[in-house]
Amino acid sequence: MLRFPLARTATVSAHCDLPCGVYDPAQARIEAESVKAVIAKANDSSDPDFRTRAVLIKEQRSELVKHHLWVLWTDYFKPPHFEKYPQLHTLFNEATKLAGATGTKGTMDAEAADSLLAKIDEIAEIFWETKKA
Amino acid sequence: MLRFPLARTATVSAHCDLPCGVYDPAQARIEAESVKAVIAKANDSSDPDFRTRAVLIKEQRSELVKHHLWVLWTDYFKPPHFEKYPQLHTLFNEATKLAGATGTKGTMDAEAADSLLAKIDEIAEIFWETKKA
Amino acid sequence: MLRFPLARTATVSAHCDLPCGVYDPAQARIEAESVKAVIAKANDSSDPDFRTRAVLIKEQRSELVKHHLWVLWTDYFKPPHFEKYPQLHTLFNEATKLAGATGTKGTMDAEAADSLLAKIDEIAEIFWETKKA
Amino acid sequence: MLRFPLARTATVSAHCDLPCGVYDPAQARIEAESVKAVIAKANDSSDPDFRTRAVLIKEQRSELVKHHLWVLWTDYFKPPHFEKYPQLHTLFNEATKLAGATGTKGTMDAEAADSLLAKIDEIAEIFWETKKA
Amino acid sequence: MLRFPLARTATVSAHCDLPCGVYDPAQARIEAESVKAVIAKANDSSDPDFRTRAVLIKEQRSELVKHHLWVLWTDYFKPPHFEKYPQLHTLFNEATKLAGATGTKGTMDAEAADSLLAKIDEIAEIFWETKKA
Amino acid sequence: MLRFPLARTATVSAHCDLPCGVYDPAQARIEAESVKAVIAKANDSSDPDFRTRAVLIKEQRSELVKHHLWVLWTDYFKPPHFEKYPQLHTLFNEATKLAGATGTKGTMDAEAADSLLAKIDEIAEIFWETKKA
Repeated sequence: MLRFPLARTATVSAHCDLPCGVYDPAQARIEAESVKAVIAKANDSSDPDFRTRAVLIKEQRSELVKHHLWVLWTDYFKPPHFEKYPQLHTLFNEATKLAGATGTKGTMDAEAADSLLAKIDEIAEIFWETKKA
Repeated sequence: MLRFPLARTATVSAHCDLPCGVYDPAQARIEAESVKAVIAKANDSSDPDFRTRAVLIKEQRSELVKHHLWVLWTDYFKPPHFEKYPQLHTLFNEATKLAGATGTKGTMDAEAADSLLAKIDEIAEIFWETKKA
Repeated sequence: MLRFPLARTATVSAHCDLPCGVYDPAQARIEAESVKAVIAKANDSSDPDFRTRAVLIKEQRSELVKHHLWVLWTDYFKPPHFEKYPQLHTLFNEATKLAGATGTKGTMDAEAADSLLAKIDEIAEIFWETKKA
Repeated sequence: MLRFPLARTATVSAHCDLPCGVYDPAQARIEAESVKAVIAKANDSSDPDFRTRAVLIKEQRSELVKHHLWVLWTDYFKPPHFEKYPQLHTLFNEATKLAGATGTKGTMDAEAADSLLAKIDEIAEIFWETKKA
Repeated sequence: MLRFPLARTATVSAHCDLPCGVYDPAQARIEAESVKAVIAKANDSSDPDFRTRAVLIKEQRSELVKHHLWVLWTDYFKPPHFEKYPQLHTLFNEATKLAGATGTKGTMDAEAADSLLAKIDEIAEIFWETKKA
Repeated sequence: MLRFPLARTATVSAHCDLPCGVYDPAQARIEAESVKAVIAKANDSSDPDFRTRAVLIKEQRSELVKHHLWVLWTDYFKPPHFEKYPQLHTLFNEATKLAGATGTKGTMDAEAADSLLAKIDEIAEIFWETKKA
């Protein structure tokens, strides 16, 4: 019996407010998982070229995490959402800061990737609540 | 009680083969849903500037559908997959052709968007089968 | 006698916190002025191809406005700033929403461009205050 | 009393010749300052991952310097400008070559960044002269 | 008997001056041919959505023409070339201006595309002369 | 006597099927030659920053190889071509996999670049055959 999460996701996330179209925090999460996977692979390797590529790919993926989160924050969420969830602004700001790997945490820190995923999950939880409302 | 599809998706789609990282056909599907939504909105509107923007956004989203599918085809699927699923090459070629809105179907055809979604679902079904294997 | 605003701007805006480097709200403002200029030109023209290009270019410039603002919001401003200027989150959210020309204002509305410029100026005022601090 | 260079810059740089819109050498200068800042930070660090990111970010910023200069050279400056300022072609060619860090100067040379800034300032000086004309 | 221009082109165009690598004016020409083809198709069509897409694609292709030409001008050609071919600066400036379809020629003018191709051929002729030198 | 491959290439490669316009495998080949040149330069150098840039540029060029090949596979080649050349799907899949430097070959392997060029030549040979048909 086939497991098929896509069809269900699609049903829920359909949203059509041109120019924004369809929103889904999964886009940010997939890229953030990629960041985490790249960090793990890089820390397991001793090949300097491999590590260079890992840093480069991590940088690109982090940019995509930031972009997808920014789009949600600006295009999907509306003033009533920010009223109902006053933590939303800070949540997005912290999540995108984590995605940028700013601060003193260093760029190959697996825990930073986990914190990023946790923040995205918090955002996604609110997102899906607003879709049900 | 909160519905939360992301966490589950994440568990399943984790895949770490640098430089590819994490694959998920949801990326292509989200963009294809966006294409479909844009077409519907455009066909409901009589504002020419709105339609221009719709054509433009649809073009960008279709490019992303193609890109995400190409990445799956090249980076995720391996020779044994193509042996087990001999239809895979044609499936991807047809799906990306549909995403490019080539052929005589015209650029604002809702049925083309549905065909594209159906192709992506076929690909996703195979994708999730290979993940279970 | 030569007027030369660049050198002075440079002195003030120097900021070096890799990965962010140098910040300047002028980047967002230049693109927003471009949006305004494109709208004016488009509304003066009756050539449909010209208008199509105007819509397209306006879309690209608006994306750049959003991007430059998002970078400021995530990478330059830090928690103490948000504490001191509690309106900052809303200001950025409204500015990027305006840049996206969301809402019911339509895409060729000169007043929306003026509102966007005014929001960017509010942000810039706070930005330069924080640089002096 | 608030210092506010943006508003003034905006007044001067308004320019509306679709498809080019608004020009301002500040765009190139901001990115070039970023290049300089990145070089300084990289040379102060002994973390190889940090340095990799610095090289990567410097590369992206240099590309943006080149792009903004190319746009000025092709889209803003017209034949009468090149007649009045016969050094303009060489100035732009040298500035973009410096931005590309070609030649034998190496990629982390702070002096190359200073030379680049000086070239951009020469271009900006001519630019603002032509705006007054 | 197979015609195979690629292999020969490759032999001639090999050039390895990192960061520039391999140069070939064919890159600009292919995109310029695409511009010309798009103009022809657009002028043959009465479908407004098709024309919108044509304007959009033409814009993207023109950007690529400009980019490839700028790279040649900045990265391939060196001071001795500009001394030997004093017309080179003007040639590149005019070619990129044509690619930008600036001026009063309008955006769907087949003759502008032909002029662009002719300029690129002039550049290519000089390029191949310098490769033989 | 001037050698001038461009004009001839242009004659042959003209192809106008909007939205695709003009196809030419030379686009992929030029980028693949660049990949090869970058690998050679990197392997000759002992400067770690230079090597970082080489890895970065190689990554970008490889992406372009993949992109140009994907476009050919999806937009140029049609079902009758795949029927006549049943090896085409595998050829493109292998070529793009090589461009992605997947597998165990490592990222600075000159032989992988040669294999990539050979695959592109096989594709180009079929491409030019279909143009003559």
